[in-house]
Amino acid sequence: MPGYPALPEGIAYGGDYYPEQWPREVQEEDVRLMREAGVTLVSLGIFAWVLLEPAEGRYEFGWLDEIIDRLHAAGIAVDLGTPTATPPPWFSRKYPDSVPVTREGVRIGLGSRESACSSHPAFLAATSALVTRLADRYGDHPAVVMWHVHNEYGAPLGECYCAASVTAWRDWLRLAHESLDALNDAWGTPFWGQRYGDWDEIDAPRWSHTVVNPAQRLDYARFSNDAHLAHYRLQRDLLRGTRKPVTTNFAGTVNCKSMDLWRWAPELDVIANDHYLDGERRDNHIHLAMSADLSRSLAGGGPWMIMEHSTGAVSWQPRGIAKRPGEMRRNSLAHVARGSDAVMFFQWRASRFGAEKFHSAMVPHAGTDSQIWRDVVALGSDLRELAEVRGSRVAAEVAIVWDWESYWALELEWRPSGDLAFLDRISAFYETLWRTHVTTDFVHPSADISGYRVVVAPSSYLLTEASAKNLQRYVESGGNLVVSYFSGIVNEHDTVHPGAHPGVLRDLLGLSIEEFHPLREHETVTLSGGATARVWSERVRLTGARSVQTFTTGPDAGHPAATVNELGAGTAWYLATAPLDGLRDLLTPILDRAAVSRPHDLPDTLEYVQRGRHVFLINHADVAASVPGVTGTDVLARTPFNGEVPAGAVTVVRLS
Amino acid sequence: MPGYPALPEGIAYGGDYYPEQWPREVQEEDVRLMREAGVTLVSLGIFAWVLLEPAEGRYEFGWLDEIIDRLHAAGIAVDLGTPTATPPPWFSRKYPDSVPVTREGVRIGLGSRESACSSHPAFLAATSALVTRLADRYGDHPAVVMWHVHNEYGAPLGECYCAASVTAWRDWLRLAHESLDALNDAWGTPFWGQRYGDWDEIDAPRWSHTVVNPAQRLDYARFSNDAHLAHYRLQRDLLRGTRKPVTTNFAGTVNCKSMDLWRWAPELDVIANDHYLDGERRDNHIHLAMSADLSRSLAGGGPWMIMEHSTGAVSWQPRGIAKRPGEMRRNSLAHVARGSDAVMFFQWRASRFGAEKFHSAMVPHAGTDSQIWRDVVALGSDLRELAEVRGSRVAAEVAIVWDWESYWALELEWRPSGDLAFLDRISAFYETLWRTHVTTDFVHPSADISGYRVVVAPSSYLLTEASAKNLQRYVESGGNLVVSYFSGIVNEHDTVHPGAHPGVLRDLLGLSIEEFHPLREHETVTLSGGATARVWSERVRLTGARSVQTFTTGPDAGHPAATVNELGAGTAWYLATAPLDGLRDLLTPILDRAAVSRPHDLPDTLEYVQRGRHVFLINHADVAASVPGVTGTDVLARTPFNGEVPAGAVTVVRLS
Amino acid sequence: MPGYPALPEGIAYGGDYYPEQWPREVQEEDVRLMREAGVTLVSLGIFAWVLLEPAEGRYEFGWLDEIIDRLHAAGIAVDLGTPTATPPPWFSRKYPDSVPVTREGVRIGLGSRESACSSHPAFLAATSALVTRLADRYGDHPAVVMWHVHNEYGAPLGECYCAASVTAWRDWLRLAHESLDALNDAWGTPFWGQRYGDWDEIDAPRWSHTVVNPAQRLDYARFSNDAHLAHYRLQRDLLRGTRKPVTTNFAGTVNCKSMDLWRWAPELDVIANDHYLDGERRDNHIHLAMSADLSRSLAGGGPWMIMEHSTGAVSWQPRGIAKRPGEMRRNSLAHVARGSDAVMFFQWRASRFGAEKFHSAMVPHAGTDSQIWRDVVALGSDLRELAEVRGSRVAAEVAIVWDWESYWALELEWRPSGDLAFLDRISAFYETLWRTHVTTDFVHPSADISGYRVVVAPSSYLLTEASAKNLQRYVESGGNLVVSYFSGIVNEHDTVHPGAHPGVLRDLLGLSIEEFHPLREHETVTLSGGATARVWSERVRLTGARSVQTFTTGPDAGHPAATVNELGAGTAWYLATAPLDGLRDLLTPILDRAAVSRPHDLPDTLEYVQRGRHVFLINHADVAASVPGVTGTDVLARTPFNGEVPAGAVTVVRLS
Repeated sequence: MPGYPALPEGIAYGGDYYPEQWPREVQEEDVRLMREAGVTLVSLGIFAWVLLEPAEGRYEFGWLDEIIDRLHAAGIAVDLGTPTATPPPWFSRKYPDSVPVTREGVRIGLGSRESACSSHPAFLAATSALVTRLADRYGDHPAVVMWHVHNEYGAPLGECYCAASVTAWRDWLRLAHESLDALNDAWGTPFWGQRYGDWDEIDAPRWSHTVVNPAQRLDYARFSNDAHLAHYRLQRDLLRGTRKPVTTNFAGTVNCKSMDLWRWAPELDVIANDHYLDGERRDNHIHLAMSADLSRSLAGGGPWMIMEHSTGAVSWQPRGIAKRPGEMRRNSLAHVARGSDAVMFFQWRASRFGAEKFHSAMVPHAGTDSQIWRDVVALGSDLRELAEVRGSRVAAEVAIVWDWESYWALELEWRPSGDLAFLDRISAFYETLWRTHVTTDFVHPSADISGYRVVVAPSSYLLTEASAKNLQRYVESGGNLVVSYFSGIVNEHDTVHPGAHPGVLRDLLGLSIEEFHPLREHETVTLSGGATARVWSERVRLTGARSVQTFTTGPDAGHPAATVNELGAGTAWYLATAPLDGLRDLLTPILDRAAVSRPHDLPDTLEYVQRGRHVFLINHADVAASVPGVTGTDVLARTPFNGEVPAGAVTVVRLS
Repeated sequence: MPGYPALPEGIAYGGDYYPEQWPREVQEEDVRLMREAGVTLVSLGIFAWVLLEPAEGRYEFGWLDEIIDRLHAAGIAVDLGTPTATPPPWFSRKYPDSVPVTREGVRIGLGSRESACSSHPAFLAATSALVTRLADRYGDHPAVVMWHVHNEYGAPLGECYCAASVTAWRDWLRLAHESLDALNDAWGTPFWGQRYGDWDEIDAPRWSHTVVNPAQRLDYARFSNDAHLAHYRLQRDLLRGTRKPVTTNFAGTVNCKSMDLWRWAPELDVIANDHYLDGERRDNHIHLAMSADLSRSLAGGGPWMIMEHSTGAVSWQPRGIAKRPGEMRRNSLAHVARGSDAVMFFQWRASRFGAEKFHSAMVPHAGTDSQIWRDVVALGSDLRELAEVRGSRVAAEVAIVWDWESYWALELEWRPSGDLAFLDRISAFYETLWRTHVTTDFVHPSADISGYRVVVAPSSYLLTEASAKNLQRYVESGGNLVVSYFSGIVNEHDTVHPGAHPGVLRDLLGLSIEEFHPLREHETVTLSGGATARVWSERVRLTGARSVQTFTTGPDAGHPAATVNELGAGTAWYLATAPLDGLRDLLTPILDRAAVSRPHDLPDTLEYVQRGRHVFLINHADVAASVPGVTGTDVLARTPFNGEVPAGAVTVVRLS
Repeated sequence: MPGYPALPEGIAYGGDYYPEQWPREVQEEDVRLMREAGVTLVSLGIFAWVLLEPAEGRYEFGWLDEIIDRLHAAGIAVDLGTPTATPPPWFSRKYPDSVPVTREGVRIGLGSRESACSSHPAFLAATSALVTRLADRYGDHPAVVMWHVHNEYGAPLGECYCAASVTAWRDWLRLAHESLDALNDAWGTPFWGQRYGDWDEIDAPRWSHTVVNPAQRLDYARFSNDAHLAHYRLQRDLLRGTRKPVTTNFAGTVNCKSMDLWRWAPELDVIANDHYLDGERRDNHIHLAMSADLSRSLAGGGPWMIMEHSTGAVSWQPRGIAKRPGEMRRNSLAHVARGSDAVMFFQWRASRFGAEKFHSAMVPHAGTDSQIWRDVVALGSDLRELAEVRGSRVAAEVAIVWDWESYWALELEWRPSGDLAFLDRISAFYETLWRTHVTTDFVHPSADISGYRVVVAPSSYLLTEASAKNLQRYVESGGNLVVSYFSGIVNEHDTVHPGAHPGVLRDLLGLSIEEFHPLREHETVTLSGGATARVWSERVRLTGARSVQTFTTGPDAGHPAATVNELGAGTAWYLATAPLDGLRDLLTPILDRAAVSRPHDLPDTLEYVQRGRHVFLINHADVAASVPGVTGTDVLARTPFNGEVPAGAVTVVRLS
């Protein structure tokens, strides 16, 4: 696997490890148990700043030396963290204005994490000083195989509104906009009389009693992303000299709205994702798959790492729902199926104190005489069997358009409906594809998408002219594009494209929208195909496309609800509402037309993913599933595959 | 129409126009399209401060000169705005303490509007300087027919808690109260030991961890109203010399709780109202009628202007619900029916940027090949036919008591029930009268009400002794008064009138209340007349009145629920609960007894209003309505009225 | 009754009296009416600071002298308040930094109450100065029979985050923790890298964007309690010299979460409780009983005083629900039944102004021609008949474990389920016992509990090792302990006890918990005994206990849900979920086994309490109740008890 050759063989296995929370005798037991479980990699030092630098410029590395050596002696590799997510109390005391401020003007309290602003000069200086020391001291240590910078940038600290941020923001604006005139144009400052005559007149878009300029907010989201990214790059560059791969763990590719991960991905040597199930949802494995597919997409289709997931309860949700029997195994192998070359947990051993003491772990409070521990050991064994999977790739014929800038813009205030929600539409299409056993990539709208048979753009509210042209070229060259409502509406500065909606997609889709007709709360409409839909209706006027389905009730009864436009060698489909059901019926003919390959006759609760020459079959149902047409070796059982996956089980078939 | 003789002939037609958002070629198209639609009046300059004064004391009027001249050349008049609702960024930077502060102590962010405190000396000075220039430059321009000061005072900025406000508030208190002793008496400072020994001890009633003195809060609401009013008057006085009418557009007569419009009305040369439908509600045309009737009442029964309404979606509601076919026409003509001599929209052309880009307009994003544009053109034509209506008055025989001070006081904390709500009771009675085809005025409780056959006081919690005497004189002289529960409880300082409730209404109503029995959440009671009621029950003791209906369930079963007291030549009715239904059954005998004239045998979805010698018939139903007994000319069709109003249509009959 | 010998004979009767709100003629009427009602004691001066000290160091005691003398002349005793809950406006102006600050950093507004921080030096000095004067002036007055310090410490001001608080907090920490190392250990600062190197690095646990160290928050709750307690003790010590009992009224023993009343009780000469019904709940009399039993328990089982309750509506609830016929009498006598030697109301006369003008009173707005007044007079008469009850004790054979520290800790963020709630579990067990006619004490887990037949620990999340040993000794010596889920989890610093849950209770209960399985929102499971349960399930592993019931559905189907462990001479029961019903079926065999005496064959709506040789029978139903087996004199009727309690009535039987 390119990018992190120093990693242990096979699928890396382990988790976050906090020896600093435990006495030496427990640390010794930890290493023994890690070996028992087959752990090959642990993340160290993530929050340990004050333990490494207990006073400004005074360092104590002894304890870390000791544990790294102990792990090394046991053959366990180290993913060494930089602890910048938790600046020490002495730092906050010395630089009180480094503590972040919310949009409402509240300076946050200490005793938590993410308590320094990424734009504060003193924080940047202190970061440099410490990371330089870490690189010097551990860069050559044979156990240290990779660097883990910071922790979950963007969660919980996305935007900061402190004075240092405002200064950095003005600098950012000067670079992002050619001139103040250009900024005024981009932000539409003639509206509500906001024209700026001096850069220093521009403040952060703080909370106000009514809506603040959305273009200003969109730029602030970009700036905030870039401020964190700059903090990451500062460290990455200091660590480069060690010639070991550098990463940072994403706070959930799907969940961390505040970071534009398309901008982060090229800066990482390996993509690392943290994923936690939404405990309340019974179908949360589909969300997991989406997060994994987005991780892989950020990794350019190659391997990546699930850096944190859980063996059971998550501490920060309303209820810490435990995993069902077999669920941890299904989850872990689903990540591997979708390209992860690692299975890492938060965390190795459950803490006895602090905010997350009720978060699950590989070693739970109940100790090793527990189902979780037995499952952890068994999983280690499974992963050894799967070593051959490492490095192989997942091929997808379908892609979904995902753009954080569109996500940010769509969910600002005063959109045509508060029910418009980025993830809602993405998820609806993703889930339908998942249940159809189609593996999906995610793509930025400006990316090269020529290789996909079908591209779906469910929520592309913000779409630049260039990206729209990219989509158009794709269709003209034979691609099949599916667009959903309220896409192609604004440019990169949240300015409505000229003319009727959907400005930059009119020609491509062969239609225009005369008027939006958002539905009332709980209101539904029906479609001629029989589906019920919610949230949205609109008056579609055909200018080349033909109607595939019409609305049969509601404000647009008798008018098109779904259309197709044949353009060049391809087709461009449009769906003007949010079906509660029936999305599969709409997509199937498109997949068929595009000859998207996928297995048939499988239950829609069976997850089917091919990675390299291995097919992963994950049965989320309570009954066994027949899988006709797949022949090969059941890798985990070391037997020929018998065509059936037991209830709740995972089977990995090496195709013959 | 007295007060604005300079206005164009007939019913003024147009909307807010922001040429500063568009290049010249679009501006030129705008003027052409305005003529096509029959536009006669546009509002200009409302948010353009920074464009007119890009730096302190540097003015740029050229662009405005140009557009005014262009409009003038096309015969379109201008309602010229003063742009004080959006002070420029340079102003906020130079005077950072002019930026408003919330009750919770948050100084609001910029990039929005209403970003200066009306009490701040620098803001007052800057306002004067600019408005003086505007008056000088445009006072004599023949196109400028009226002044539009500021925009929607009170929304979103009602109360400000900055230091300048506190200083102004102390000055206000010194005028409002004879002495500190008088203030202490008025505010009941012996309660919770709040006696003030010095004016400078008094702070604004900021948010606290429990309830702040309600009399202090009530005075702060008055002060805040007066602070905005002073800012208006400052401008009005500067504009007076131009001899052109001055107005400001109310942020919804019914909706803008923070401004006491009875105090504003005498200061305006013409009443101007902004009204937006509550998109989620199917019967929002009744709310529109209420807003229009309150506008007319503020105008003393004479003509007024609907200064802003919408052709479709509103940008700031949870969902921007579009209008149904014919709805814009029904809405516009309902305003005219109820006294408006104008039909003005926010806005002429949909913005491409800024917070309100998804707000509807006369020229939508879809352009002129759209139903909205066709409706706009047709409406212009209708209004030309209705020119003869201009200046005529609407006569009402019934009035509802409306007092903002009572509204404020009722909805402070710790009232006997959180379900008490000013608009809820007003609306219940108004809607019942609307469905009974009775046109209603609104009156202040101290007003001359002798001309009305019936006066309804549904929510007069705060009622001064003088106002109560006014109501009593009205009844004694033959009037018919209907009072609803929790009225007549406190005086102007939220002090309970002496003795049993309802202190100042006991004699008038011939009863007293022994104890309030507010109902639990969702709890209902029944009345002997069959109605179900909610929110309130109480123990009524008759001291002269007789019971009309009793409670049959609940804490007051067997005791009076509705009563009548014959007093002098009139009657005083009392209703001790909130019927969910059956209010019409209670009101009908009262209307009959008072001989209130109204049409009979009409569906309750047909809006019926007589203005001068014209009857407006607005059919809100999906079926045609027969209207027996109305004969005359169908003005819009230029035919004799055939006695039927088609589904969704509006017919205006000039009575013969 | 030991502790307050100066009190009037019999059951004290009266309420809070605010003569400062009324002119002299009303005051004179007040005294006349008090005598009519049989009032023997009133609380004076509670909020009167500014009236007693209108400017710093200038005192005006004349008005208070006068009213005390007038009351004395009428034979009415005075409970004299210190008015420190409402520092004067001049104080807040002079010491603006004495005004409390919230966790979010908002300095509260004035015009309310609790507007000074208990840790502020100027507030402590001003308190001393005033209280010294009060003690000097009134210490010897024969009418003044007790002191009433402050008002409801902890409501609404629990924790303050001002600078003075932070200084005091650091001092408190130095005393509470041996050293900074000890603090770091106690707080688990290795988690999220929070190790402190200097006391001055420690800030208050202000609001942050994610969870703040729970041990820090727990200590801040302790500090805040102690800061208020220190303010109380300062006053108490100044008043000691008067040789009259000193108290402060608790803001609801059950309701005031912020104060650890086990720490307050020893500092008071008499326990005084304020109790207000939750108006919306139909069974709020059970909550009343719980509050009264907790008051008695704080008083060590001896008499106490209900210092405030209401004759009807409460002002601060969402709806001011009035009392039903007879309810005020039932409430008052329930307090007496459970040990109160007083019946005191907030308030004597309904205010005409201020925040609480709609709160009920002994003299309502309607005056004396009202049911409330007649009930007040009748209650005075009842209490005279009950004089003989004074000083007698209530014996309880069952106790419930109640620990405010566990309450605080349990309800911090990020527990395994947001549905975990201290009062929910306590109430469930209490209510079941109430309906079984078992009188219950409350005990701290470290208290001597050897005298109880059954001890219930429904919600002992935080349980120290010492307390756990106390419980274990109790069982081994023959006691019967009932523990509910999520108990015995953490120590006094919110650190999980070592090993499997429930750390310090494993041996006592004979089981361990392998994994928590909190239920989803609205999810339920069933038990083998037939009950349905919610919130919680968990994997119980027996290590000595035996299963009494199993789960039949849910994540632990087939595993134990209720267990018993026989240990020494006693039994330890465990319940692993929250039954919606069926708790009585679970408790009955335990009560039987422990031979807990209670009446049988009574309806579960009849409240049955024995105090000394009197049995109080309170019928909360709408039908009469038969009470077999109780013979004696009906004290209120002065007749032999006929074995029946009429609907809604209270009968007090002196056992023969």
